[in-house]
Amino acid sequence: MAARELRIGMVGYKFMGKAHSHAYRDLPFFFNTGVTPVMTAIAGRDEAGVRAAAEQFGFASYETDWRRLVERDDIDVVDIVTPNNTHAEIAIAAAKAGKHIICEKPLALTVDQAKQMRDAVNEAGVRAIVCHNYRFSPAIQYAKQLISSGKLGRIYHVRAQYLQDWIMDPEFPLVWRLRKEVTGSGALGDIGAHIIDLARFLVGEITDLTATMETFIKERPLGEMSGGLNAKKDATATGIVDVDDAAAWLAHFDQGALGVFEATRFAAGNRNGNRIEVNGEKGSICWDLENMNNLQVYLADDAPGLQGFRTINCTEEQHPFAGAYWPAGHIIGYEHTFINLFATFFQSIVGETECKPDFEDGLRNERVLEAIAQSSERGQWVKVSQV
Amino acid sequence: MAARELRIGMVGYKFMGKAHSHAYRDLPFFFNTGVTPVMTAIAGRDEAGVRAAAEQFGFASYETDWRRLVERDDIDVVDIVTPNNTHAEIAIAAAKAGKHIICEKPLALTVDQAKQMRDAVNEAGVRAIVCHNYRFSPAIQYAKQLISSGKLGRIYHVRAQYLQDWIMDPEFPLVWRLRKEVTGSGALGDIGAHIIDLARFLVGEITDLTATMETFIKERPLGEMSGGLNAKKDATATGIVDVDDAAAWLAHFDQGALGVFEATRFAAGNRNGNRIEVNGEKGSICWDLENMNNLQVYLADDAPGLQGFRTINCTEEQHPFAGAYWPAGHIIGYEHTFINLFATFFQSIVGETECKPDFEDGLRNERVLEAIAQSSERGQWVKVSQV
Amino acid sequence: MAARELRIGMVGYKFMGKAHSHAYRDLPFFFNTGVTPVMTAIAGRDEAGVRAAAEQFGFASYETDWRRLVERDDIDVVDIVTPNNTHAEIAIAAAKAGKHIICEKPLALTVDQAKQMRDAVNEAGVRAIVCHNYRFSPAIQYAKQLISSGKLGRIYHVRAQYLQDWIMDPEFPLVWRLRKEVTGSGALGDIGAHIIDLARFLVGEITDLTATMETFIKERPLGEMSGGLNAKKDATATGIVDVDDAAAWLAHFDQGALGVFEATRFAAGNRNGNRIEVNGEKGSICWDLENMNNLQVYLADDAPGLQGFRTINCTEEQHPFAGAYWPAGHIIGYEHTFINLFATFFQSIVGETECKPDFEDGLRNERVLEAIAQSSERGQWVKVSQV
Amino acid sequence: MAARELRIGMVGYKFMGKAHSHAYRDLPFFFNTGVTPVMTAIAGRDEAGVRAAAEQFGFASYETDWRRLVERDDIDVVDIVTPNNTHAEIAIAAAKAGKHIICEKPLALTVDQAKQMRDAVNEAGVRAIVCHNYRFSPAIQYAKQLISSGKLGRIYHVRAQYLQDWIMDPEFPLVWRLRKEVTGSGALGDIGAHIIDLARFLVGEITDLTATMETFIKERPLGEMSGGLNAKKDATATGIVDVDDAAAWLAHFDQGALGVFEATRFAAGNRNGNRIEVNGEKGSICWDLENMNNLQVYLADDAPGLQGFRTINCTEEQHPFAGAYWPAGHIIGYEHTFINLFATFFQSIVGETECKPDFEDGLRNERVLEAIAQSSERGQWVKVSQV
Repeated sequence: MAARELRIGMVGYKFMGKAHSHAYRDLPFFFNTGVTPVMTAIAGRDEAGVRAAAEQFGFASYETDWRRLVERDDIDVVDIVTPNNTHAEIAIAAAKAGKHIICEKPLALTVDQAKQMRDAVNEAGVRAIVCHNYRFSPAIQYAKQLISSGKLGRIYHVRAQYLQDWIMDPEFPLVWRLRKEVTGSGALGDIGAHIIDLARFLVGEITDLTATMETFIKERPLGEMSGGLNAKKDATATGIVDVDDAAAWLAHFDQGALGVFEATRFAAGNRNGNRIEVNGEKGSICWDLENMNNLQVYLADDAPGLQGFRTINCTEEQHPFAGAYWPAGHIIGYEHTFINLFATFFQSIVGETECKPDFEDGLRNERVLEAIAQSSERGQWVKVSQV
Repeated sequence: MAARELRIGMVGYKFMGKAHSHAYRDLPFFFNTGVTPVMTAIAGRDEAGVRAAAEQFGFASYETDWRRLVERDDIDVVDIVTPNNTHAEIAIAAAKAGKHIICEKPLALTVDQAKQMRDAVNEAGVRAIVCHNYRFSPAIQYAKQLISSGKLGRIYHVRAQYLQDWIMDPEFPLVWRLRKEVTGSGALGDIGAHIIDLARFLVGEITDLTATMETFIKERPLGEMSGGLNAKKDATATGIVDVDDAAAWLAHFDQGALGVFEATRFAAGNRNGNRIEVNGEKGSICWDLENMNNLQVYLADDAPGLQGFRTINCTEEQHPFAGAYWPAGHIIGYEHTFINLFATFFQSIVGETECKPDFEDGLRNERVLEAIAQSSERGQWVKVSQV
Repeated sequence: MAARELRIGMVGYKFMGKAHSHAYRDLPFFFNTGVTPVMTAIAGRDEAGVRAAAEQFGFASYETDWRRLVERDDIDVVDIVTPNNTHAEIAIAAAKAGKHIICEKPLALTVDQAKQMRDAVNEAGVRAIVCHNYRFSPAIQYAKQLISSGKLGRIYHVRAQYLQDWIMDPEFPLVWRLRKEVTGSGALGDIGAHIIDLARFLVGEITDLTATMETFIKERPLGEMSGGLNAKKDATATGIVDVDDAAAWLAHFDQGALGVFEATRFAAGNRNGNRIEVNGEKGSICWDLENMNNLQVYLADDAPGLQGFRTINCTEEQHPFAGAYWPAGHIIGYEHTFINLFATFFQSIVGETECKPDFEDGLRNERVLEAIAQSSERGQWVKVSQV
Repeated sequence: MAARELRIGMVGYKFMGKAHSHAYRDLPFFFNTGVTPVMTAIAGRDEAGVRAAAEQFGFASYETDWRRLVERDDIDVVDIVTPNNTHAEIAIAAAKAGKHIICEKPLALTVDQAKQMRDAVNEAGVRAIVCHNYRFSPAIQYAKQLISSGKLGRIYHVRAQYLQDWIMDPEFPLVWRLRKEVTGSGALGDIGAHIIDLARFLVGEITDLTATMETFIKERPLGEMSGGLNAKKDATATGIVDVDDAAAWLAHFDQGALGVFEATRFAAGNRNGNRIEVNGEKGSICWDLENMNNLQVYLADDAPGLQGFRTINCTEEQHPFAGAYWPAGHIIGYEHTFINLFATFFQSIVGETECKPDFEDGLRNERVLEAIAQSSERGQWVKVSQV
């Protein structure tokens, strides 16, 4: 049976544009989802830039106005990889145009925006996913299975950190990820959103929290606004950093667990240290993105004397998604989290089944982000439901 | 020159009694401190028990009333290893009797008690130390040197967890460590006090914090009050657990760092997971008690491409205390932290020099504990100075 | 400037066929080599099988006789992923037909075959590479740079193991990898060849060696000849295993180092434990395929007290090939070793530069394999040059 | 019941003298063996040195001639911690004098010596132990239980390395451990003997082997003959190194396993890297002295998906010897291996039971050492039984 084609229109073309584009191209090789993604169009304001991106990534055409892309009849899915302040407008327009939507995280700048996005998607009856790609790591998916099946019992603790160090140099310039009007928040929305998603996925909803946020370097040289890791500074002027360098929060979960979270770009030596530990009455799991194929598992019912954390290389057929790739012991990497996410999403479109994390998840994540910001500002515990 | 004898009188004789007694006996073999500890007397209420302890540990005599021990002329140092609710009375009496004092942690049940203890010691002009033994690990002492010398630069983050799992079984009985009137608090004072001490030692004072405490198992069988890890339960009755099973807190340090702390007895698979990470502008350190000889060190000025955490086995002559023991690569264990602590304390007595952590440290630690309890109760940030 | 197309004809289509095909498709996304590989044809004897493979992998056409593929004018590169006993005939024919050649390891069944292959390639003036893909891991490439630049000084020790466990079940059937006439040897040629290549790449030539080979399970059920990890057995008959389950050898290197090697499929718990350690006068490196992004590096000129193995996540711009992929801390996987290998090979074709490991390397590897087999049989040291 | 006193006479007083003396003193605190070791006398040729050692270690008297010590009526056990070339004469004299014997490894310089020692001990009917202390680590003892109980099934592989780096500096002087007439061999007898003992203890007897030995630095400055790790060189003269810097061997075990061994003092970054891995049909274990409390265990009958090496902190009551020390998660160190060894030995004296490793073990170890030396010299496989 011929695979159904899904024609992708991508808005934006930086780091995430590269990651998504690669996944579209590589997906059909590994997964027989019944869907063939067709890289139809890409949109960006700078014509030279978007034309080059179209060629580099393999899109058949380009637009310099995202509104035109959204309106095109030959687009089935709109993929939003732009800075955070543009997600809502694009997604709502795409939903109204009847397109399925893939949106980078965090879903929006505010809870209100996120709510409008969720409502737009629901009204339009289109499918939408937020790119919390790390929950699609085989190790995390397997951890989820262990927890859902009761293998760890009642969960007592969630302990998650997302530690990076790429802006520790005070001379690193004020790129868009450091400007509130564009990004909403700093480490919080960028990487904190990821550990919120992992915790929600693995354990459940956060009910209330107390938080603090820090900006260690309060002024930075201006420079390439759009720059990433290696952005160049502009020698002559500086600007105020109005987003957080680090955020930390304590949280209660609806099912009774205690959460301790930290997201920072100032943890020297941690390039991409996304780590989560979950402790339950019957066992525990630990995971670290930098060695993402491994899951540490402790089972309290192991024989006395033989109890200890196991290092499981989640590359075996029992591990979700792993069977699509290589034999046991042949690891996969960062990019495969996107392939797994898209494969799941496309199957949900074809199968007309639910697909998580959807915009409701994105909204709930946003509520937690907002609760953290409010708690940090007010110095009080905040109920997530009241945000 | 003959070593000076210091005659030790120990009050209490359970787990910590064993650890301290061993250290007294073993210390002279490794350290030439100019002091010979003489195990003169041990006190306990139960005559059969204390007599057996005297024989087992090697004390020359015993008392069934600690007051008699404190009054004896042939005692120079009173070592307090009793449950927390007795520390203050014993320590104050010992100070008044002109004895130097070693006291287990946490120093007291309340800030008021701790203050009285500090004042008593200061008035009497005796030396006193609180048994925060983990700061005497060579790896921690070396980390302190790195931080003090500026090798890590300005400190941004402290991340510490003390994770245990020994009371996870709901059938584990209500031993003294789970009764507020005896112990003051649960995981907080027992193991949380240790990570507060490590953080204070390595980084500085905590100014304010927000906290939460949890009791996951709220009722337990009664059983051996004095029991430890393998305490037996009494089949017929239960009692209320009025201390915390877990505590977590976010904290600001006086020099600007952000602290994230967690102490719990419900982290399955962690027998004694006392872990601390410190991130500074020029580098980071990580440490874990279960592999206590190792210090992970990251230095940001390592050549690009060659940057990564080093695993340093702190058994070399450059590592504090290590030279007293064995050649490089021949590790030491838990008990040596006490030997190092006592060696330091005895040298301070002989040398009439300062010795940390003293009762002022114990008081400051207690203030943080109290602030955590208040914050958890009120749901607000608490300034440590106002406790 | 338009990229030059290189039209690939692949012979064979099992596990390695999948790995190579993926790499052809994925390569242009990451590398701008000036070459576009075009997946022109694939050959296999079973028409249904090869047709399905062509579709699955993305080849435009197929042949049921490899000779026809080799003769086709529209093929520039012949890629040989068939069992070992067919490499020589195909490669020699391909060379005669003027095709560049990619050949899976081990290059041949015998030194004689390997010599003929190397000569054929040299005479034809085509480029040829042997798929020792692991040397194309960024961590290994970086280790090579450290060694070549003298950073480790004179090399004293090479310690390499390739540990697997996929045939430990005595009921696992007698697949082609366990039949001498097809594969030449067992663990030795399959995985031992990889650690020989790593050692030759990093340190130099092996001059002489003493070896032993073992077959722990001497008879196995017959079953799917072509089967891989999950091959099914045939219930009714058994056959003799005439290849090694494990091989070990001690070796001297031309520059003076001592090598200790082991390749086995009977190391329970090691799915794909390809590990190498190199110790030099100024430092050491350690690597493990199961965490292939990490390189452990020890530098003896680190300050005393700060000496220890560093864990370097080789995902930074300083690490070879890493810049083509993702930002620091975003790891790559098994498949990228092939992408890196092909990128290197294609650049050498376009640039008319040398490309290693070529068939001379394959021949030298084969000599070592043969020396190991001879040594094991004779119970004597064997000089590699005399094989 | 009063403990029986065993009066110890120690011959020698360097590094091992310190380790043994400490163990005698510390043992009664932890173990109730029914024996109290009394440190009666110590012997050494240099009166000033031996007098200082007696005081430092806690011996009640000293002798400047070991023969006098051996003859003393008030000595029950002779402990030999002298250089290897003196073991035989002292041990044989001690046996003839009816003393029990503790002897440092390797037992002797030659197989003949070892045989005479074993015979002397057997004839005299005294108990004797060789100080292969590492087999007394709780983790190793527990591994032995797993193997003996069949938990790992048939053993296929033993892989052991003892890696050090303390003489890598070519300016390190020619201490006694580098002089054949005193020590017999270099890395081989000093550290290779330890991994032979571990392998024999865990798996069984070595039947035949092929070996190679290397001396990387062939000439060194003269210096303190008796020096250890920090020995000073003498600026003016050099001498020939006539022992091995490194040794490696392949071996077959009587029960069918394949062994790969390496002992070296030239593995930069490895201060004391005594590592052993055993792979069996049902599981595997791995151990590393530098983190000696941990045992890695893989069990093939773990549920698919949940298979991986467990890190077991062998500090629980199920782990041999661990119960004598501290609660779970409170680690022990190097020195405790001697305490465990002596406790075992003393119990065997009191209980008149067998105690391993005895001089028969020492002899078998010596045979393997001798077989390695012969094999290295002749370039042939050597049968251990024919040495």
